[in-house]
Formats: sequence, C-alpha cells, structure tokens
Amino acid sequence: MPNLSDRDTPFLALDRDRMDRNVARMRDRAEALGVTLRPHLKTVKSVPAAQRILGDMAAPATVSTLQEAEAFAEAGCRDLIYAVGIAPAKLPRVLAMRQAGTDLAVILDNAAQAEAVCAASRAADAPIPALIEIDSDGMRAGLAPDDPRIVALGRRLVEGGAELRGVLTHGGASYGRFTDADRRAMAAQERDAAVAAATALRAAGLACPVVSVGSTPSAAFATDLTGVTELRAGVYTLSDLMMAGLGVGGIDDIALSVVATVIGHQEARGWILTDAGFMALSRDRGTAGMPVDQGFGLVADLDGVPFGDLIVQGTSQEHGILAMRPGSSAPLPDLPVGTRLRIYPNHACATVGMHPAFAVTEGGQEIVDDWPILRGW
Amino acid sequence: MPNLSDRDTPFLALDRDRMDRNVARMRDRAEALGVTLRPHLKTVKSVPAAQRILGDMAAPATVSTLQEAEAFAEAGCRDLIYAVGIAPAKLPRVLAMRQAGTDLAVILDNAAQAEAVCAASRAADAPIPALIEIDSDGMRAGLAPDDPRIVALGRRLVEGGAELRGVLTHGGASYGRFTDADRRAMAAQERDAAVAAATALRAAGLACPVVSVGSTPSAAFATDLTGVTELRAGVYTLSDLMMAGLGVGGIDDIALSVVATVIGHQEARGWILTDAGFMALSRDRGTAGMPVDQGFGLVADLDGVPFGDLIVQGTSQEHGILAMRPGSSAPLPDLPVGTRLRIYPNHACATVGMHPAFAVTEGGQEIVDDWPILRGW
Repeated sequence: MPNLSDRDTPFLALDRDRMDRNVARMRDRAEALGVTLRPHLKTVKSVPAAQRILGDMAAPATVSTLQEAEAFAEAGCRDLIYAVGIAPAKLPRVLAMRQAGTDLAVILDNAAQAEAVCAASRAADAPIPALIEIDSDGMRAGLAPDDPRIVALGRRLVEGGAELRGVLTHGGASYGRFTDADRRAMAAQERDAAVAAATALRAAGLACPVVSVGSTPSAAFATDLTGVTELRAGVYTLSDLMMAGLGVGGIDDIALSVVATVIGHQEARGWILTDAGFMALSRDRGTAGMPVDQGFGLVADLDGVPFGDLIVQGTSQEHGILAMRPGSSAPLPDLPVGTRLRIYPNHACATVGMHPAFAVTEGGQEIVDDWPILRGW
Repeated sequence: MPNLSDRDTPFLALDRDRMDRNVARMRDRAEALGVTLRPHLKTVKSVPAAQRILGDMAAPATVSTLQEAEAFAEAGCRDLIYAVGIAPAKLPRVLAMRQAGTDLAVILDNAAQAEAVCAASRAADAPIPALIEIDSDGMRAGLAPDDPRIVALGRRLVEGGAELRGVLTHGGASYGRFTDADRRAMAAQERDAAVAAATALRAAGLACPVVSVGSTPSAAFATDLTGVTELRAGVYTLSDLMMAGLGVGGIDDIALSVVATVIGHQEARGWILTDAGFMALSRDRGTAGMPVDQGFGLVADLDGVPFGDLIVQGTSQEHGILAMRPGSSAPLPDLPVGTRLRIYPNHACATVGMHPAFAVTEGGQEIVDDWPILRGW
C-alpha cells in the first residue's frame, strides 16, 4: 500500500476518518434541529468525496458551479441548488440538466434574472425552480428581508412561467463571530432573515416551500431553526484552521492537509523552507483577522500532530517559509532537509481548488484511495 | 469563430498580441544587456504558450515544478533549470529526464542536498548539474554571497561526482521597490550577489560557467549585467497589476484577464456582483502593499479598457464584489445583469494556476485558440 512518504510533494491528503466524523456530527445536528441537510459540495469538488458525504447520491446537495452540478448529476445527484446568482447565459445548461432528470434549482435577487428564468422556462415549456436570495448579513448578494422586491420577484416568477421554490440565505458574517454567543446570534439572524422573507411571500399568497439557510459556523451553533426547512454547509466536511478558530471542532478534526518536504533552512532568520508554496496552500489568509493568526497554515508532523507554534509565515509560488508564530518562545523544531510535514490550511475550499486529487488516508499514513478534484466551470 | 461572449464565465483570456509584444521587449533587453534569456515558464504553465514564448523549444527555460519540466521536455525543451531547491526524493525524476535527453539542472543551498545530488549522480554514473542558490535580498532561500559554505558546496559537488553548473539568485525584493532608481539598485544588488559568489568559486579553482539572475522587475530595470551570463524572468510574458504598479509596462501591456458576468447589484452599497470569485481570480493581493492597491483586480470592458476606478473589492469562492476604489469620486458605471467584463489580476502566476486553459485572442474578442494549463506537481 502506498503511503504519504511515497509520492513527490506537495500533494493533498484527506483523512477519511476525520471527514466521516465531521459528516456524521453535522448530520446529527441537522436531525436534532429538525431540518434537511443539504451539504455544499464546493468544498470537496470531488465525486468520490461527494459519494462519501451524501451516502445516497439522490440526497439534497448544493453546488457553486455548473461544472460541479454536471459532474455530481452524472454521478447520481438528483436534487441540487446552484447557490450563486444565475447569469442568464447559463440557463441553457440548467435546462439541459433538468431535462436529463436532475432537479437543479437556481437562485436570484433581481428582476433581470427573474425575467431570464421566466423566458427560459416558457421557451422550454418547463418551469425552472428559483429561490430568492435574501441578504441576512450585508456581506454579499440578496435582498434585505423586508425588501418589497421579494414579493414582486416571487410573483413574477410564478406569473412568468417559472417556479418559486423558496428563499435562501448564507450568513457568511458568521466567519467573523468570535464567541459562542455571537455565533448563536448570527445563526438566529440568518434564520430570522429567511423566515421573514418566506412569511412575506406567504402573506402575499405565494407558496414558499423551501426556506434554506446556512454556513458552517452558523450551522454548528444554531440552537433553534424554527421555520427553516433546510441547512446548507460545506467546509464542515473537511474543516480547516478558520473553523478551528471559530470553535467548530479542533485541529484534530481537520481532515485536510498539504504534505510538504523540507528543502532548506535560513538559520539566522529562524526559517525552514519547504516545497509547498501558494500553488499548494493557496493565498488564503482567512485566519488573518481571527484571534489566532495561523499564517498560511499550521505545521504538523506526518501523523498530523502540530509542532506547537510552527506556522507557514510566507509563501511564493512553490516555496513555503516556516517560522515560529510571532511571540512564541518555543524553539524552532529540528527538521532536517527531506523531512516530510503536513500543513493544515486556513481555508479548505481554497486549498482544495489548487490540487488535482486527494490522497485519501484512514487516519494513518497509508494512502487507500485517490479522489480526483474538479477544475474549471 | 467563437468569441469572448460565447462561453460561460468565468474563464481566462490571453491576448496573444500583448504577450508577443512583452516577449519581444524582454528578448531585446536581454540582447542589449548581453545575456542569455531563460524565460520562467511557471507563469504560463502551458505547452503552447511556452512554444510561443521560446520560439525554438530547445532554447533555455526555467521551471518551478518537475511536472512543468516533464511537460515542456516532452514538447521539446532541452535546457531547463528547476529553480526550487531540490528535495532529495525528487532526484529519480530528474535523472529520468536527463537520461531521456533533457539537460535539466537543479539548485541547492545546503550540504544535505549536495550529498543527495552527489549520491544520485554516482549511482547513475551520470553527473547531475547543480547551481548553488545565492541569497541576494534576504527574502527566501540561498546562501549569502560571502558565505564560505558556497565554496564548500561547490567543491563537494565536484568531488562527489555531480556537476557544478554555476550560481543562481532571484531578487524577489524587486517587487517592493517603488521607484526606478530603487529597482535599478535592486538589479545591481542581484547581479553583485551572483557575481561575488561566482568569483569566490573561481578563486577557489572551481569552474562556474553559469551566473544566473532574475525577476521581472529587476530584469526590466537592469542597466549593467557585467559578469552575469543569463537572465530569468517569467511574469513579463503576461504581465499583471503588480508589474504595472512597478512600472514594468502599463495596464495595456497586461495580456491576461478573467472574463466575468454581472449577476447582480447592491445599489445602497455601491456594489456590482459578478461570477468571478477567488476560484477565478485567486486570493492574491499582491498590490495591497503597493502605491496603488487594485483590490482583487481592475475591471475593464470586454475590449480590455478599464472603467477608471472600478476594482474587485472582495471575493468569495464564486462571487466577486466590484466597487469604486476608496476615495474615488467617479460614479459607479451602469453595468446591467448579464454584462461581460474583463478583470486584470494582481498576479498572473497565481491567477493562471486557477484555470484549466487560456482562451487565446489576437487583441480583439475572437477566440483563436485554447491553450491548456498544467495542474499538479
């Protein structure tokens, strides 16, 4: 059996045992909260990983690109939301997937999108289901929960020949909530926004079957999802340093790491150089604004045990510079040239996107499978 | 003929006319400076692009991964430097490429690497050429120009059965030099470091045929490369907002852009939303520390003409948020849903790495070719 020492670095390792635990934990949470879990597959971008996460591929899932939708549909997914506001030119691909038997829904927040969805639905004589995107935190897209355009859009979808599937919001601001109480409050804010929009639609006589919320931190801290029908989250599957920094599990719940090799030292500067730069780790610095800044990643041994305060301080394309965390009094570990390391990333989604495949382990160092990762759109 | 409006966004466009101009300009500079140009192909990571840049594929080139080396060798490259300190475990691939007829050289800066290169050379009865990496700016790897270990390493390579090919340095600090005078000084510093190391080796009776320097900003501003034999640079081929910020050409020399579609607006916040997030642009914020901070990219129309101060202010995985540059008094342009845009990136190397292919144009909007981009290691 090949293991983590056998192949040339850098490469991406996925600890399937940790992923399984993370997946089971969120499934239990959704069940306890009385909502359907709709995992966001943008984190893994991989058919075998999706099969592991969903179990039954016909289960609900979320995607961030039509390429993901097409690949997962090909592998058996039948219930997908493409959770990025639809560009009108992409509707032919949406229709083609629907005609091939996948219930792919789109999201939108403006009249131009609604008109395009209606026109495509009428032209195909096949209503395309759309969810209206609600802005629960001022961070990105969507209409404010009390915006009268929500009802206007909902009515237009129904009257124009499309299908009003429901409302959807993503409380991405949860990534900036650093106490349990603030994360719980953010989960409530996300829920309230979606439920208020659904209530407005229903008050106007419009059906709103789906009330969809989610982000991993809000999903992990939600205590009451009354009125919500489904929960979307993605990064919980692999977890990362941002999630650990937000109290969503610990470092030993992170299923993703980049395997790197020591290629040199700058003793006078307290640096260790590796062959994992930003092409392997990504440029994501998601922990930069968090209470614990992990640089470009936290360094562990090949068993996944961190070296205390050793982080990736800098990256260039194919170089990483390791150093002790600012303020640390611990000595630099002795890691000779050729030593292999694992680096836990800031942001799993960003790091996965840099790699062609996962080297899958079962907690140890043996590689039991290779799971290809999608690329493109 | 397909054009930039025909395919689903986001995707990567490469203006071949601009690239040709950039390539010719640097070729002329190297000729005027009396040095061999050894283009760094890590920027394009693409065989057809390399063919266009090199003209004759047997010409010298630089790579940042062994995957690049193998792909370019397969396409005819015969003279390559793998310009990341060699990890001992990678030497079998180096030997295999050399035995297949490509003169692939490695770089190193420590005794453990030198011993590994010597051992591999002896075992194969085939000396592996190595360049000693010199640290010209304190930014990354390499030995200081006056470090006595340079001569010790050079001697060990020769006596241990490898080949001492020369010395190499990369003055990456040139990315932080914001006047012409400072960039010229950095080019001189880079040259002086490499030449000093070569002089020390020769004084010890060791041959040092190659004295290799380079980064795009130092290459663009060097005025005297006496003692240097070759110049390495990569990003000049495509250019980017960092290069424009460093006076290496203007915005209209940037050959690379991400084509995106407007998917919505947040009028009250002055935002335009697109479908090009960090998976399309990368998380690179290379202009963040520069006199002009371009956010995650500068926004242009489909002809490549910038909308003044419109930049990508934020990104999530598949969303971009466009806004006017802080302090701008210009109005937000009217860009309805469905409008296609081109976004010039901070850092060409990082953005190229996110995409499966270039859609190649000849300055206009027609796509005349598709060039695949390598992925992995």
